[in-house]
Amino acid sequence: MNYSIIRYIVGWVLCIEAVFLLIPLALCLIFGEPYAASYIAAILMAAVPGVAMAAKKPRNQAFYAREGFVTVALSWIFMSLAGALPFFISRCIPSFVDALFEVISGFTTTGASILLDVEAMPRSLLFWRSFTHWIGGMGVLVFLLALLPMAGGQSILLMRAESPGPTVGKLVPRLQRTAVYLYGIYFGMTVTQFLMMVAGGLDAFSAICISFGSAGTGGFGILNSSLGSYSTYIQVVVTFFMLAFGVNFNFYFYLIMRRFRSALGIEEVWRYISIFAFATGAVTLELFLRGYGDFGHCLLHGAFQCSSIMTTTGFSTVDFNLWPTFSKSVLVGLMFIGACAGSTGGGIKVSRITMYCKNVARELKHVIHPRSVNVVRMDGKALDEDVVRSSNMWFLAYVMVFAVSMLIVTVDNFDFITSFTAVAATLNNIGPGLEVVGATGNFAGFSALSKFVLMFDMLAGRLEIFPMLLLLAPGTWRK
Amino acid sequence: MNYSIIRYIVGWVLCIEAVFLLIPLALCLIFGEPYAASYIAAILMAAVPGVAMAAKKPRNQAFYAREGFVTVALSWIFMSLAGALPFFISRCIPSFVDALFEVISGFTTTGASILLDVEAMPRSLLFWRSFTHWIGGMGVLVFLLALLPMAGGQSILLMRAESPGPTVGKLVPRLQRTAVYLYGIYFGMTVTQFLMMVAGGLDAFSAICISFGSAGTGGFGILNSSLGSYSTYIQVVVTFFMLAFGVNFNFYFYLIMRRFRSALGIEEVWRYISIFAFATGAVTLELFLRGYGDFGHCLLHGAFQCSSIMTTTGFSTVDFNLWPTFSKSVLVGLMFIGACAGSTGGGIKVSRITMYCKNVARELKHVIHPRSVNVVRMDGKALDEDVVRSSNMWFLAYVMVFAVSMLIVTVDNFDFITSFTAVAATLNNIGPGLEVVGATGNFAGFSALSKFVLMFDMLAGRLEIFPMLLLLAPGTWRK
Repeated sequence: MNYSIIRYIVGWVLCIEAVFLLIPLALCLIFGEPYAASYIAAILMAAVPGVAMAAKKPRNQAFYAREGFVTVALSWIFMSLAGALPFFISRCIPSFVDALFEVISGFTTTGASILLDVEAMPRSLLFWRSFTHWIGGMGVLVFLLALLPMAGGQSILLMRAESPGPTVGKLVPRLQRTAVYLYGIYFGMTVTQFLMMVAGGLDAFSAICISFGSAGTGGFGILNSSLGSYSTYIQVVVTFFMLAFGVNFNFYFYLIMRRFRSALGIEEVWRYISIFAFATGAVTLELFLRGYGDFGHCLLHGAFQCSSIMTTTGFSTVDFNLWPTFSKSVLVGLMFIGACAGSTGGGIKVSRITMYCKNVARELKHVIHPRSVNVVRMDGKALDEDVVRSSNMWFLAYVMVFAVSMLIVTVDNFDFITSFTAVAATLNNIGPGLEVVGATGNFAGFSALSKFVLMFDMLAGRLEIFPMLLLLAPGTWRK
Repeated sequence: MNYSIIRYIVGWVLCIEAVFLLIPLALCLIFGEPYAASYIAAILMAAVPGVAMAAKKPRNQAFYAREGFVTVALSWIFMSLAGALPFFISRCIPSFVDALFEVISGFTTTGASILLDVEAMPRSLLFWRSFTHWIGGMGVLVFLLALLPMAGGQSILLMRAESPGPTVGKLVPRLQRTAVYLYGIYFGMTVTQFLMMVAGGLDAFSAICISFGSAGTGGFGILNSSLGSYSTYIQVVVTFFMLAFGVNFNFYFYLIMRRFRSALGIEEVWRYISIFAFATGAVTLELFLRGYGDFGHCLLHGAFQCSSIMTTTGFSTVDFNLWPTFSKSVLVGLMFIGACAGSTGGGIKVSRITMYCKNVARELKHVIHPRSVNVVRMDGKALDEDVVRSSNMWFLAYVMVFAVSMLIVTVDNFDFITSFTAVAATLNNIGPGLEVVGATGNFAGFSALSKFVLMFDMLAGRLEIFPMLLLLAPGTWRK
């Protein structure tokens, strides 16, 4: 293993984070909050080791998949350790485990919270909390790749390890330009949402925090009622943008390049929209038939909750824990399906689900016509068997991480649904689950052990399982 | 598709069932119950079409995987339709849907019941109910194969489609002898359990019904309290035999052949025992620490419930729905893991779980050392990539059937856990779930639609998904 290149990149990540932390520091000074010293301490504790680690460019640039996975996993862990410092040093979250949980939940765009009273937090920290969503959504290493030209073609391995989905490719031949495009689209959409919300009468601070939460599909709100108290206009805008940030970013890239046929040819996007429409229709119908309000009300909240859960954002406008069982099951189903690959959303991803369904259909065809050759196609092209295999492996690993986490978390003796949805909500990077961890609940009551397991799950979910598993495999660290 | 051979085999299955039905008819006469006419009607309704269908041996003996799957699926459906008749005609179960549910639950060795009061049933029907477990456990087509020499080597396809597990092979070169051996072991073990229970003071009728339920890993009891009211000796005997019937029958074959090294070389058996021991230990410890009784009591009931759930039998001695969450999760985990392939138990099967874990480990190794060649081994031999692929496909299909079933069943608006464990308990052929369908509950309250879905799941679980999916695929029926 090439440790020096790992050290170098992790160092850079810490430096970038120190720069990012200047923004809440500035806000803290503007708002006149008494936490400037906490921010400065945190910035120094990130910047000093960061600069030391990134100072010497490693001579050995050898870089393989293993280094890529380990670098990304360690970058995210160090970034979270440093990101938790402002909460902890300011004593706004007195326990470091809780602060770490909150920040990992932020960076991984989960949105699961241990805070009992969000509104009691100082505004600069609420900003930092939401900002971590935005950073984590597109990824800090993608940001780094946009910033500095890395050696050789191997840095694609970093992007592969950090980006959600089974297949990550370059949009344009040069990786740095790809990263710039991605962040450009991301930034542009965030600004659009911000402006539309301000135009709807929302104050700038709320608008920026909610935009960060939607863009990263994170879900931290700044009010205890999440988005329940905002106007219908704002709720509709957020519904639309959550959904938009859950779309494969290749779609937007093709739109910008005026390659409309390519954009419309992305199968995943249409399936994603169809599943959303079907789920919203089903939930709206059940809520309406069971007398949860007039049709418009049911549609508004049905669409919002489906969009929020499917994109793994986790905002809520109503307490869906009180919904009937079918609607709750639809939401739990959406939790697992998740958003598109190549978006900021989590979950299994629509493209993987599509691939799995096509594989099963192929298997049936194979039984019916043993001598026929059946190729699985996506977007009209034959799928590489290697991608099929590694996607299957991903799913098995996902189920195993889920099962082991569930066993450990249940030792806390919360009820079965709480335990089950707590793991589902963290591993899929959603945020709220049902019952104790439902839309109006939080994760404060779990033991430290469970919190660590759930932190692992959040990171595993965001980084697509294998980088985190690799950290635990003894073989990774052997010579 | 070769319809004539399918007709021929299904006809034979109905004839065999008519013969089997003579036993409860005899019991009915002995016990002096007023249902003889019902049995005779049922026997005629099975025998007449059965003889008509099996009378003419088909000239075209062409037989492929497709015919194998369809034959097995249709055999089980017709067998269930005929098996439900005694319950329905006697009006002991007035609804045909309920009678069908009960009998499918019997044949598939699920043990899920719609009966509110088991003890109110006439004894001959209680016998038939338990006898369906015994027939379904080893399989009616395996029985047929033991009985009559079928043409060519293709009848192995029938056995493959009916036997649980990813790889089904012949124990001895001739298929008929393999089937005879399997039924011989099965019969011998059932008789042993029966004798041990009678030696413990149990009446012969109870002993035979419980032996059938354990042997088929079915779980229909003859008392409302399942096995809760029997002596500790009986409970220990049943614990042991449930576990024994969940072992891969190859193990016993090797023992009989005195090929002890081969017997001990079956990896799955040792993993199965280890998982059972670990689960029992964990549950016993939690129950003891949380004050559910003295250590012996916790161990007895922990071991019984773990054995019952892991082998997918479904007998119970206590209401485990009242257990703490960790223990319940262990049981839910065991529901999914299931017993060994090549046993009478259901679930995912220990061999598949083992294969999945090894595959994920191989994937990690592949990332760490991209150029190394890693072969997945089971029992010391390299696994065929075809088996790996079809096992992965099986798992994906399993998850899909689960998800779709769950969505339909939740429309009944039972709570989430009831719906989830109802599907888990039927698809894995266990019987009881949690909450409404818990050890002391039953499936009577579900709508007819949900009952049909759960019947499909029971058959899909017993026949390893694909035969039932094939029935639904339009391509199967096309020329």
